[in-house]
Amino acid sequence: MERVSEKTIGRLSLYRRVMDKLAREGRDYAFSHEIAHMSGATPDQVRRDIMVLGYSGSPNRGYSVGELSKSIGEFLDDLDVQNVVLVGVGNLGRAILSYFAGKRPKLSIIACFDNDSEKTGRVINGCRCYPMSQLQDVINENNASIAIMAVPFSASQEVADRLTHSGIKGILNFTPVSIKVPHGTYVEDIDMTMALEKVAFYSRQKPQGQVLERRSNDKAGH
Amino acid sequence: MERVSEKTIGRLSLYRRVMDKLAREGRDYAFSHEIAHMSGATPDQVRRDIMVLGYSGSPNRGYSVGELSKSIGEFLDDLDVQNVVLVGVGNLGRAILSYFAGKRPKLSIIACFDNDSEKTGRVINGCRCYPMSQLQDVINENNASIAIMAVPFSASQEVADRLTHSGIKGILNFTPVSIKVPHGTYVEDIDMTMALEKVAFYSRQKPQGQVLERRSNDKAGH
Repeated sequence: MERVSEKTIGRLSLYRRVMDKLAREGRDYAFSHEIAHMSGATPDQVRRDIMVLGYSGSPNRGYSVGELSKSIGEFLDDLDVQNVVLVGVGNLGRAILSYFAGKRPKLSIIACFDNDSEKTGRVINGCRCYPMSQLQDVINENNASIAIMAVPFSASQEVADRLTHSGIKGILNFTPVSIKVPHGTYVEDIDMTMALEKVAFYSRQKPQGQVLERRSNDKAGH
Repeated sequence: MERVSEKTIGRLSLYRRVMDKLAREGRDYAFSHEIAHMSGATPDQVRRDIMVLGYSGSPNRGYSVGELSKSIGEFLDDLDVQNVVLVGVGNLGRAILSYFAGKRPKLSIIACFDNDSEKTGRVINGCRCYPMSQLQDVINENNASIAIMAVPFSASQEVADRLTHSGIKGILNFTPVSIKVPHGTYVEDIDMTMALEKVAFYSRQKPQGQVLERRSNDKAGH
């Protein structure tokens, strides 16, 4: 398999949701320019991204909505379900649990962890909560490879170390700090507070002033 | 005021939280290399970013934790509270409400909107829910300038249009699609599903294979 850029992976994730939406609307086929319009990409990008899948549409009818969604799934998803753990069951952790519950059949949050004895032993938003002391055991027993971190600031690096030592290969990091991980571990960061503070700051700037327009067209690319 | 990059704005948001953490730990002063270490920036970056504030530390003791936090607040925050509205009170919308509630004294989510009559008229996670028909009135009456969008895929552009027509100048967009906004409106995108799918994909790749290491050190920069 040739090297595929992060941006392409991100856009394929988006195209699949575009296909799911079209399927719900009863559409059977879609042209690259329609997919492009709905994704904020160019038709050319859409065609190049889809070529990565080894799938091609028909010049007259476009791409089959069902087959394209399936092809993207075969490319993005594992054959088996990938098990995910979540660490830190505060407000944000609970929010993430309820957001992702049942969203992707091939990604299952099988356990969450917290140090608070009020939470451990309970099922929170459909997910069983374990004490941090059982982190490594639960990860190993369930062959989990992915973790979502929603712990406080101060615990981030320690938790990241324990996760990677336990065999976690990918981390979705909701904490605001940079974490250091071993070679071969992939990290994606989401800092919701920073995002809102940036919006607040730039919403006060005059258009002709210091800040240039920034349209939301690099959506699929970061 | 000179032009300030988005990355600097993002890092200042992070430094403030670093200061808040140090303050909770009882620290009075911090050196740029300590702030850098906690933020995943370089000491040089930290010093340059803080120069934007017109604030400087002492060569012997570093930056005053309290004063630096205050300087960042004076730069990032408005003098008055900025009012925020949230559109779309599904799982994600509710999660966002509870995450941001009370987090920033200068940013207040004063109303949320949904079309579901089961939700409107109620107070959800501390926030009153209005029908979409009252969007413009509530925004105008409260002089809200910022919106958080957590609506379904298909409604994104229509909701974005209504928000900008009502005077919204900054949007934090949690929907997966690109939205088009008028010149002078700032948009920041967060796509949680894409982020998790990228982590899942790259967590399965071999380190020596197609994917190069990506450490989480561009944290403050995207």
